[in-house]
Amino acid sequence: MSRSVVAAMTAYTLELREAEVKLNQNESPYDWPRALKEQVLARAVERPWNIYPDFESQALRDALAKAYGLAAENIHVGNGSNELLAATIGAFVGPGTPVIFPRPTFTLYEKLVTIAGGLPIPIEFEPDSGLLPLDEVLSHVSEDAVVIVCSPNNPTGGVLPEGGLQKLIESGAMVLFDRAYGDFANDTFPALHPRLITFSTFSKAWGLAALRIGWVATTAENAREIRKVKLPYSLNAISEMAATIALENRQLRDANVARIVSERERVVSAMRAIPRITLFPTKANFVAFRAERNSKEIFEAMFARGILVRDVSGYPRLANCLRISIGSPEQNDRMLQALKESV
Amino acid sequence: MSRSVVAAMTAYTLELREAEVKLNQNESPYDWPRALKEQVLARAVERPWNIYPDFESQALRDALAKAYGLAAENIHVGNGSNELLAATIGAFVGPGTPVIFPRPTFTLYEKLVTIAGGLPIPIEFEPDSGLLPLDEVLSHVSEDAVVIVCSPNNPTGGVLPEGGLQKLIESGAMVLFDRAYGDFANDTFPALHPRLITFSTFSKAWGLAALRIGWVATTAENAREIRKVKLPYSLNAISEMAATIALENRQLRDANVARIVSERERVVSAMRAIPRITLFPTKANFVAFRAERNSKEIFEAMFARGILVRDVSGYPRLANCLRISIGSPEQNDRMLQALKESV
Repeated sequence: MSRSVVAAMTAYTLELREAEVKLNQNESPYDWPRALKEQVLARAVERPWNIYPDFESQALRDALAKAYGLAAENIHVGNGSNELLAATIGAFVGPGTPVIFPRPTFTLYEKLVTIAGGLPIPIEFEPDSGLLPLDEVLSHVSEDAVVIVCSPNNPTGGVLPEGGLQKLIESGAMVLFDRAYGDFANDTFPALHPRLITFSTFSKAWGLAALRIGWVATTAENAREIRKVKLPYSLNAISEMAATIALENRQLRDANVARIVSERERVVSAMRAIPRITLFPTKANFVAFRAERNSKEIFEAMFARGILVRDVSGYPRLANCLRISIGSPEQNDRMLQALKESV
Repeated sequence: MSRSVVAAMTAYTLELREAEVKLNQNESPYDWPRALKEQVLARAVERPWNIYPDFESQALRDALAKAYGLAAENIHVGNGSNELLAATIGAFVGPGTPVIFPRPTFTLYEKLVTIAGGLPIPIEFEPDSGLLPLDEVLSHVSEDAVVIVCSPNNPTGGVLPEGGLQKLIESGAMVLFDRAYGDFANDTFPALHPRLITFSTFSKAWGLAALRIGWVATTAENAREIRKVKLPYSLNAISEMAATIALENRQLRDANVARIVSERERVVSAMRAIPRITLFPTKANFVAFRAERNSKEIFEAMFARGILVRDVSGYPRLANCLRISIGSPEQNDRMLQALKESV
């Protein structure tokens, strides 16, 4: 028998469907150039596969430190930022720890807090304003609390109000800040602080979702605590090579972001002209909206037209809502046409 | 501040040293053939890197099911068996759950149990017999208990007595069985049982440590519970391809195992003739022994001769003990010469 807290949980699932236009997972629409892939693979073939990765992923941590003005001791890399979120929650959330987070948000946070035995305190908000509920979060904070905030927020697209992260840090809580979509909001990488732990990913703006690479930045002291919980060798040797080469080619990320943000503005404008849906303001690489019609029917109607989107109506406060990733111009045109015919 | 249980822990560390002959991590001494690597990489270059791995790693789970006579619903794959151990302990060990395990053993078990808030019950044993302390473990078992057993055991090399796994299952406890080194003991993959969860890895006999691939097998019901705790997408796309291609080339693993076991027998015979050390019987791809001289001095003397081994004297009951992986014939010859000069 599993633990009662686990037995009571439901698994995080994703219905597996294939479609010509895949806009359901907030992936970049742009594959890596073949020449860069081949650069990674040429390095990989020379590397012995029977030998473990570097215990501390030193090469990638050094490269990240250089790129972001940090020191390697401030950084851990891992198998997607999910793994680092899990390790950090394992280090800072114990039985009964209050963990405050806006909701609807990425469902993994609440799941990890529950597994750790923490006390989830969701602050529900309406996504229409495009702002996360900073004041309500602050009103629930205590010094023993942990706050988790994703800005821009998945799946709604909204952000913290100006100066919000600083206010959260000053509240005395430990702040876990997920900036998975931060590049699309043109955010500034936040300065280190003893009460701030920042999670980033190569899966979105960098276009490396297949390779599962995430990283966390915080003070050396916090990093030492996370390291006690984090599994060693958690990044495989080829993904480490790919991320290191990615950092040598930052113009790729910048070009991805520029194209996606430009398309986001075009798509949002076009969607605003579509009747019977209400868009939520977005700074991410996706747009969420509320429909008048049943969202499952819209999902199926779009799927029948070759477009796979995400029905997010199961989230609190998101009845009849859908989320659509920003794709390439061609994908977006097809999506817009299908959406018009489906709402 | 991190949780008190974490603050009290020390990090799992490995001193990073480079040597001509690396025998400190129980890796296979045999790299993958270049042609097979190129087969993986040719597949990888065609696969879009911007798109997430399959949510459930279906292709690899199907291949494992076929290879081991299971169904895909019995299997999860992950980023090394460590990740699956962590998820399983998260699912089955809660605050106060008694977790019984022979010790000395792989230190990660106790760390993961501590993080989960479980009650570690180490059963200390002397490694000289080459057998794990089955009767002592059985005498501590209760029906709410979890047992973790690694056979052959890391770092001592000993195994459960004949029929031991069956007795553990019949005791009523939930048994987590780590067969990371099972191929070297010519073990039989155990039949599914509601109280058995079996962990395997591609890092040792398969020679794929760089790619971090592990898997877990159990009943569909247990697998569903583990899935609630396990992170999704935890195996990157390239590692999944490599493992799938590995299973199409099982003769590689068989050849690795045959060469390593044959070398193990030769190395053990040669070591038995070396004075001032006492070998522990081993069925793994490594051999551990107790020295009369200080083990740290032996470690340094061997390192000075280009041989990197593992000083395991920090483990309970292993004062002045070292562990040496079985390498290639040439590596082993160099190791034996250095050992003779160092003990």
